[in-house]
Amino acid sequence: MRILFFGDVVGRAGRDAVIAHMPALRERLDPDLTVVNGENSAGGYGVTVKLAEEFFAAGIDVVTLGNHTWDQKELVGTIEQQPRIIRPLNYPEGTPGRGFVLLQARGGRKVLVVNVLLRLFMEPMDDPFAAVDRVLKAHRLGAGQGAGGVDAVLIDMHGEATSEKMIMGHFCDGRASLVVGTHSHVPTADHMVLPKGTAYQSDAGMCGDYDSAIGMKKEIALAKMVRKLPTERLTPAEGEGTVCGCYVETDDRTGLAVRIEPLRVGGRLSQTLPERMQ
Amino acid sequence: MRILFFGDVVGRAGRDAVIAHMPALRERLDPDLTVVNGENSAGGYGVTVKLAEEFFAAGIDVVTLGNHTWDQKELVGTIEQQPRIIRPLNYPEGTPGRGFVLLQARGGRKVLVVNVLLRLFMEPMDDPFAAVDRVLKAHRLGAGQGAGGVDAVLIDMHGEATSEKMIMGHFCDGRASLVVGTHSHVPTADHMVLPKGTAYQSDAGMCGDYDSAIGMKKEIALAKMVRKLPTERLTPAEGEGTVCGCYVETDDRTGLAVRIEPLRVGGRLSQTLPERMQ
Amino acid sequence: MRILFFGDVVGRAGRDAVIAHMPALRERLDPDLTVVNGENSAGGYGVTVKLAEEFFAAGIDVVTLGNHTWDQKELVGTIEQQPRIIRPLNYPEGTPGRGFVLLQARGGRKVLVVNVLLRLFMEPMDDPFAAVDRVLKAHRLGAGQGAGGVDAVLIDMHGEATSEKMIMGHFCDGRASLVVGTHSHVPTADHMVLPKGTAYQSDAGMCGDYDSAIGMKKEIALAKMVRKLPTERLTPAEGEGTVCGCYVETDDRTGLAVRIEPLRVGGRLSQTLPERMQ
Amino acid sequence: MRILFFGDVVGRAGRDAVIAHMPALRERLDPDLTVVNGENSAGGYGVTVKLAEEFFAAGIDVVTLGNHTWDQKELVGTIEQQPRIIRPLNYPEGTPGRGFVLLQARGGRKVLVVNVLLRLFMEPMDDPFAAVDRVLKAHRLGAGQGAGGVDAVLIDMHGEATSEKMIMGHFCDGRASLVVGTHSHVPTADHMVLPKGTAYQSDAGMCGDYDSAIGMKKEIALAKMVRKLPTERLTPAEGEGTVCGCYVETDDRTGLAVRIEPLRVGGRLSQTLPERMQ
Ligand SMILES: [Fe+2]
Ligand SMILES: [Fe+2]
Ligand SMILES: [Fe+2]
Ligand SMILES: [Fe+2]
Ligand SMILES: [Fe+2]
Ligand SMILES: [Fe+2]
Ligand SMILES: [Fe+2]
Ligand SMILES: [Fe+2]
Repeated sequence: MRILFFGDVVGRAGRDAVIAHMPALRERLDPDLTVVNGENSAGGYGVTVKLAEEFFAAGIDVVTLGNHTWDQKELVGTIEQQPRIIRPLNYPEGTPGRGFVLLQARGGRKVLVVNVLLRLFMEPMDDPFAAVDRVLKAHRLGAGQGAGGVDAVLIDMHGEATSEKMIMGHFCDGRASLVVGTHSHVPTADHMVLPKGTAYQSDAGMCGDYDSAIGMKKEIALAKMVRKLPTERLTPAEGEGTVCGCYVETDDRTGLAVRIEPLRVGGRLSQTLPERMQ
Repeated sequence: MRILFFGDVVGRAGRDAVIAHMPALRERLDPDLTVVNGENSAGGYGVTVKLAEEFFAAGIDVVTLGNHTWDQKELVGTIEQQPRIIRPLNYPEGTPGRGFVLLQARGGRKVLVVNVLLRLFMEPMDDPFAAVDRVLKAHRLGAGQGAGGVDAVLIDMHGEATSEKMIMGHFCDGRASLVVGTHSHVPTADHMVLPKGTAYQSDAGMCGDYDSAIGMKKEIALAKMVRKLPTERLTPAEGEGTVCGCYVETDDRTGLAVRIEPLRVGGRLSQTLPERMQ
Repeated sequence: MRILFFGDVVGRAGRDAVIAHMPALRERLDPDLTVVNGENSAGGYGVTVKLAEEFFAAGIDVVTLGNHTWDQKELVGTIEQQPRIIRPLNYPEGTPGRGFVLLQARGGRKVLVVNVLLRLFMEPMDDPFAAVDRVLKAHRLGAGQGAGGVDAVLIDMHGEATSEKMIMGHFCDGRASLVVGTHSHVPTADHMVLPKGTAYQSDAGMCGDYDSAIGMKKEIALAKMVRKLPTERLTPAEGEGTVCGCYVETDDRTGLAVRIEPLRVGGRLSQTLPERMQ
Repeated sequence: MRILFFGDVVGRAGRDAVIAHMPALRERLDPDLTVVNGENSAGGYGVTVKLAEEFFAAGIDVVTLGNHTWDQKELVGTIEQQPRIIRPLNYPEGTPGRGFVLLQARGGRKVLVVNVLLRLFMEPMDDPFAAVDRVLKAHRLGAGQGAGGVDAVLIDMHGEATSEKMIMGHFCDGRASLVVGTHSHVPTADHMVLPKGTAYQSDAGMCGDYDSAIGMKKEIALAKMVRKLPTERLTPAEGEGTVCGCYVETDDRTGLAVRIEPLRVGGRLSQTLPERMQ
């Protein structure tokens, strides 16, 4: 299976970049599953069903979220209309929406997409390891697992600390196709296949303008942090966005990864595309 | 000028990798300045003068530190013997050692190396922006700046949050040759030359074994985080290390960067070398 | 019912103070239940079964814990021998020991004691509100509740932030006899009966030497915080300890509180005893 | 000298309580200096010059602030009009306003009032110990200190962690008349005169409605923390406020404290008044 994942989309610059590059990426990579983290797509703060539907129209299958899940308050009442928008798994019981979604991919293959919030330097949440463990035990990876089996598992772990991210990667190693981080808004260059076959990258990086402070206007962010005086509200930078993410190929028998490659296209970052596109 | 920087060296795996790769890197890159962050080189915790001297013997010019500066208590009494070991600038007044060093490079050129601790999700420290600002005002970048001028400025910002790192990059843009992050132990793929000419990378990545939790044994780290019970002390993973860092070329007239390239060699991460080596 | 609670016992000064004052307190207050937070009783770090048994011998019924639960590693293997040592409820599943205990008090009355860790500015833990809610739903307060009913409920919430503590108080109001905080090591003067009948105090205060930094030697703590250099290990201050806590009387029909009074005896703090002792 | 200090005033309930009780407190205590922390007086968020002037009209001499200093943006432009509103000392250089004020009290006596932000679990700030040390070295306590001498020094340390507060108390012991904490919004019962003569209380407690979450409406605070869904903005609780603070008497020869007593009047907390009023 071929999987494409993009990190946190920040504002219009991020949305425009993703939507502009999707046709070529779809044509040349022909992904079976495309997932984007949308937690900053609505002006930097959350997502709406309307914006998610623009992603779906562009060929994206699932929108994941993070600590900004409810920044657009309307989503509390609308998330359940759209099962392909998922919010982190480890919110309190009774939270609207779901923390994972099971999709039908081409050829009758089943794909599980999970979203989870990590905890170091983040808001208090329920144990992400226990939550992910329960989901993985209910959805065994690989052909021949029977009724509960799935052909691919993608986990978007939304978190700050690289230690916790690497530990989550090892915790899932052999049980997921891809464990990829979001939230730092910077792509990491540690994409690798872990020893038991799970593709891993600490952070996919944001889709947005990198001449900024994690996608937001640098002048405002600098004034806020350095002078500690009130400023105008932080809004997304408006230069050309870079689409950041990764591309993974799995072995259909095992569901495990055979390769992971970074993808950075457009905007200010160094450009790199999967070998399949070159 | 040609500058080589390596991120946090973790334990023996990290030291061995750096020392093993240095001869080829020196020969093929011929750097004017080589700097390494050594805060985890002594079994994961701090550095000693003896270990720093092994780096110097291998051709490294300066060892920087971070939040683990004093993990090896002996350094409190010995750091002043060795001005090429620098500790973060924004420790309290009266702290042994210095936060920057001015070196003589080939051809009479002057190079300033600065180490600073950021503050988000870190221990409380004095304002890194004010501290860096004072140093940069006393050491103007570029030929023709007269007595206080320097030919290159390298800033190792040791910090957790990508927002603060990017803000520091912009804060120094046009006043430093390279602003590079350390501490996350994961290389970022956002190396770029900022609009006013400063080379930037959010994190250089660690030099160590990446089949680990930020360089430490993954089994111990996983047990500690997931089960929350006492474990043995975290010690460095022992597999082959990857040397991670970046390579920068500056314009001798301005001191600004003309290029920045990532470097990852050995071990488990995808390999990449500066074009000059290819 | 008459309930006596003491906050974090710190080191020998704290243990000696508690044990010295217990005979008079027992004689003059005649408590039905006495609980102490013992998380710092073993030289400032955790508790052992042996030390807990000294508390039991002095007439204390239950020892609660907190973030220092496992500082004495032996407790991992021994806590299950002694059900009257309880550890926070919201540790991961599979953690040794239990988060609450149900005791038989005089006259066949049943008493539930619960220990829970709050999360703001603390280590990540599972949701304390959900965890406490489950326990309270399984143990209804007040006579005439049938098989699952209990005559008194005491909750030791171990936490840093006063906001979270007050919210936990209101969350339990009407369902517990006493919700009392620990961990700050300073007694608060906000003891009150909440609108629905639960006695509340944000922090009971430590039992230890208050000429200190939260019970530890002030010179070491000051050097560590101000100079940020390595110091000797923090150890408990050794002056005379103050026993700090609160005294609660409940209505046996409802299990709710009719009064809460602070108790501070010995050492440097202003002295205050329940009216019943005067 | 007689000194009266009140902790964080929260909203109208807090302002009304302070202003209603001031006439009796002034008449019966006859204070030489009265200080209030006003950081939450404007609807829970900051203070305005207009509100500060209501405090001054009621007989208060100085308004201190904290982490909410700039919540009312207008204060950035107006604070310099009113030297008796002070903001924390350890903001970055160039911040409007001042971190201390020197007042003339009755009989030609000089009083220094200082405001400082602590750092544990708070926003990054410059070193509070170094900042306070500089001010105390420039203003020696006690008669006969000559030109730079002052007759009383009051320090409002605005902070979260009791450890840091106690360390600051000892750091200033013998050099200040009173070191009192704010920010936790809960009064502590550890008021004492430290060994070298400085009066100390970890937190003065808020002036506001205690049937709340640190002065804010409990229903909103509970929903926000427990359910983690968007709620309406937190606003102050509106029940009768308790005025919380402390009363200190100093020795005019030394400037050191001879007594410190808590004060709690009105509202839901247990009531206590200085002996002088009884
Ligand atoms: Fe994000
Ligand atoms: Fe995020
Ligand atoms: Fe490090
Ligand atoms: Fe570090
Ligand atoms: Fe604790
Ligand atoms: Fe404690
Ligand atoms: Fe406040
Ligand atoms: Fe505050």
